[in-house]
Amino acid sequence: MIAFFTDWGNDSYYVGVCKGVIKTINRKAEIIDVLHDTKKFDPKVNAHILHRFAGDFPEGTIFLCVIDAGVGGSRKPVIMKTKERNYYFVAPDNGLLTLVAQEYGIDKLVEISNEKYFFRKNYSTTFHGRDIFSPAAAYLSKGVPIEEFGPELEDINLFRYKKPEIKNDYLEGEIVFWDTFGNVQTNIPAEMGDTLFKKDDKIIIQIEDQKFEAYYERVFSDVLPGELLIHPESSGHLEIAINQGNAKEYMKLDTEGVEITLKRKEE
Amino acid sequence: MIAFFTDWGNDSYYVGVCKGVIKTINRKAEIIDVLHDTKKFDPKVNAHILHRFAGDFPEGTIFLCVIDAGVGGSRKPVIMKTKERNYYFVAPDNGLLTLVAQEYGIDKLVEISNEKYFFRKNYSTTFHGRDIFSPAAAYLSKGVPIEEFGPELEDINLFRYKKPEIKNDYLEGEIVFWDTFGNVQTNIPAEMGDTLFKKDDKIIIQIEDQKFEAYYERVFSDVLPGELLIHPESSGHLEIAINQGNAKEYMKLDTEGVEITLKRKEE
Amino acid sequence: MIAFFTDWGNDSYYVGVCKGVIKTINRKAEIIDVLHDTKKFDPKVNAHILHRFAGDFPEGTIFLCVIDAGVGGSRKPVIMKTKERNYYFVAPDNGLLTLVAQEYGIDKLVEISNEKYFFRKNYSTTFHGRDIFSPAAAYLSKGVPIEEFGPELEDINLFRYKKPEIKNDYLEGEIVFWDTFGNVQTNIPAEMGDTLFKKDDKIIIQIEDQKFEAYYERVFSDVLPGELLIHPESSGHLEIAINQGNAKEYMKLDTEGVEITLKRKEE
Repeated sequence: MIAFFTDWGNDSYYVGVCKGVIKTINRKAEIIDVLHDTKKFDPKVNAHILHRFAGDFPEGTIFLCVIDAGVGGSRKPVIMKTKERNYYFVAPDNGLLTLVAQEYGIDKLVEISNEKYFFRKNYSTTFHGRDIFSPAAAYLSKGVPIEEFGPELEDINLFRYKKPEIKNDYLEGEIVFWDTFGNVQTNIPAEMGDTLFKKDDKIIIQIEDQKFEAYYERVFSDVLPGELLIHPESSGHLEIAINQGNAKEYMKLDTEGVEITLKRKEE
Repeated sequence: MIAFFTDWGNDSYYVGVCKGVIKTINRKAEIIDVLHDTKKFDPKVNAHILHRFAGDFPEGTIFLCVIDAGVGGSRKPVIMKTKERNYYFVAPDNGLLTLVAQEYGIDKLVEISNEKYFFRKNYSTTFHGRDIFSPAAAYLSKGVPIEEFGPELEDINLFRYKKPEIKNDYLEGEIVFWDTFGNVQTNIPAEMGDTLFKKDDKIIIQIEDQKFEAYYERVFSDVLPGELLIHPESSGHLEIAINQGNAKEYMKLDTEGVEITLKRKEE
Repeated sequence: MIAFFTDWGNDSYYVGVCKGVIKTINRKAEIIDVLHDTKKFDPKVNAHILHRFAGDFPEGTIFLCVIDAGVGGSRKPVIMKTKERNYYFVAPDNGLLTLVAQEYGIDKLVEISNEKYFFRKNYSTTFHGRDIFSPAAAYLSKGVPIEEFGPELEDINLFRYKKPEIKNDYLEGEIVFWDTFGNVQTNIPAEMGDTLFKKDDKIIIQIEDQKFEAYYERVFSDVLPGELLIHPESSGHLEIAINQGNAKEYMKLDTEGVEITLKRKEE
């Protein structure tokens, strides 16, 4: 089974082309569309999204993940097999696999360089999604062993981010993305929140030089409309939201990846 | 076969997560995406949409329908098996199943409460689509009998709506939704229209205290550009539209569910 | 395998309805969504898009292509089997098949008129996608021979367009569509470009009475941000783009299908 994740949009025929390529190589391949309408050209934001959905797929799933950075430059196409779950990630080595590599461990990592497994076109430029990544996923789904695709690599490129941590009386972590409703996702596990805070605590949120106050709650309706709350999102991380409002706009956030601390307000 | 219908949008990874959960439970499950980009948090509008597409699916289809109301409150997760067509609807009991229940009849109705068939996560909050509804659909597709999921219920919650009816010399019904082109859908069957009106009749449309005149026709091109018409939409219901125009804006509609009457203008 | 291509949008239940119809006729049919969010009511633009993705699908693929013109009028529903690749195209005969017919050759062409293979509904109007095209694709996928669907036709309707050509010292062709980034697609094969031009050449683009200067390059990053370039797009055609900009807006294009010439600037 191939779980397909790109930032190409649902209004592009590129996704369709890649499905055609996969089915040409392996007529029996099963392709599951996961998401194609996500923040474009942003491997870091999408690394967090990949991390949030990957774990709900069955053992042995092949994840075909094509999110490239906007700017050029050379990054290797890779296949990463994980220790836990026996997952295969077919992706550019640009940080996109950072969190799933840390979560599931790297069992084997190869560069995709064996042209035998490329989709050959006599075009002068290359559409890597079609010509390299999709064929690799298709051949993997046919049972071609990972070693066949190219030389083993030592390690993937990791992007830097603030690891979530409990620091005496506060939590630190990072804002990782927001959704279309303006609900703001952090990388801080909900259990860390429950270690330091209890329901209805008033929390000081610090983001760079800005401070906000929010309630530590379970669900939106625990606060009044318009009030800020911190609560566990369904992925198991703390989310900052406004009941019937837009927290991202209220907090005037414009860049993901900023550090955040959460501390109980003493009263 | 699982027909998948939500209001989560095509820009959310939640749909992908649920596919992962389903395939984890039943690797052989076939998932058909029906629609994920529909009016959010509106069980009533989506009840009409569900009713319009369900009947074209084969007998025995499992419909996984996750449209919750915006506000909280407790509604039970249910599985409804229908008398006709042998359909299974896995959905929140919030009115979403009103029209398909009336159309196909309820053969058996259970609350989903047997935690054996939940997708267990140690999260403090619950994403019902992932944790309850998707697993139920997946286990049904594996052949688990409906009785296994929980206790039988007497009846589902129905929302109220104006049943379409022929009243002497006029028709009454409700405006149920509009599409992105501003074509306005009613719940009045086309046959009722043909009982009272004939092609090219001038019709008085009354919606609350507003009145409009339209022609009773077959297709858009039966009227001039800019003219209002009433005609049978492909689902078999009367639609109000403007040839090359936007009827919803012209009629200044802003809420679905308002009553409508249609009467021939005497001349 | 049925590759499904419409202009109905991802926010419409019509795509879902057609999947239901197909699965009702052939439970084993495999449906691959290619694209549903493309320029509406435009068979010509979509003929180019169809041509760009079709070739990457395996031999024997059934392409279900429902793009109708905005205005009414009668066009026949057809099935076209191609000489090369053994493809089947199920589509309205409105020019949509122009380029794939020229690329792969017509082996057999029939009008879909045998009502035995319609999806019968007692509705007074017809939704051809649901009632004629989808059933035809489904029955084809079950092995019904093309001759069964209706009488053979002589030829399809072709739309007119400027065939790409090398004219002494310049190239001529047509602007065929643009994407959401404003990258402008031509129908001129990249090889024609390489015949007349070399990397870094300055090129005069003429579109009607407007002239622009661009560099002939391989990739976006070969020019500075804001500069215009011409380069081979992944489909193998020349694309006009601005590095980190919107070429369509810069060139004030508003209609596809205009002629274009490319000539090296003498210096």
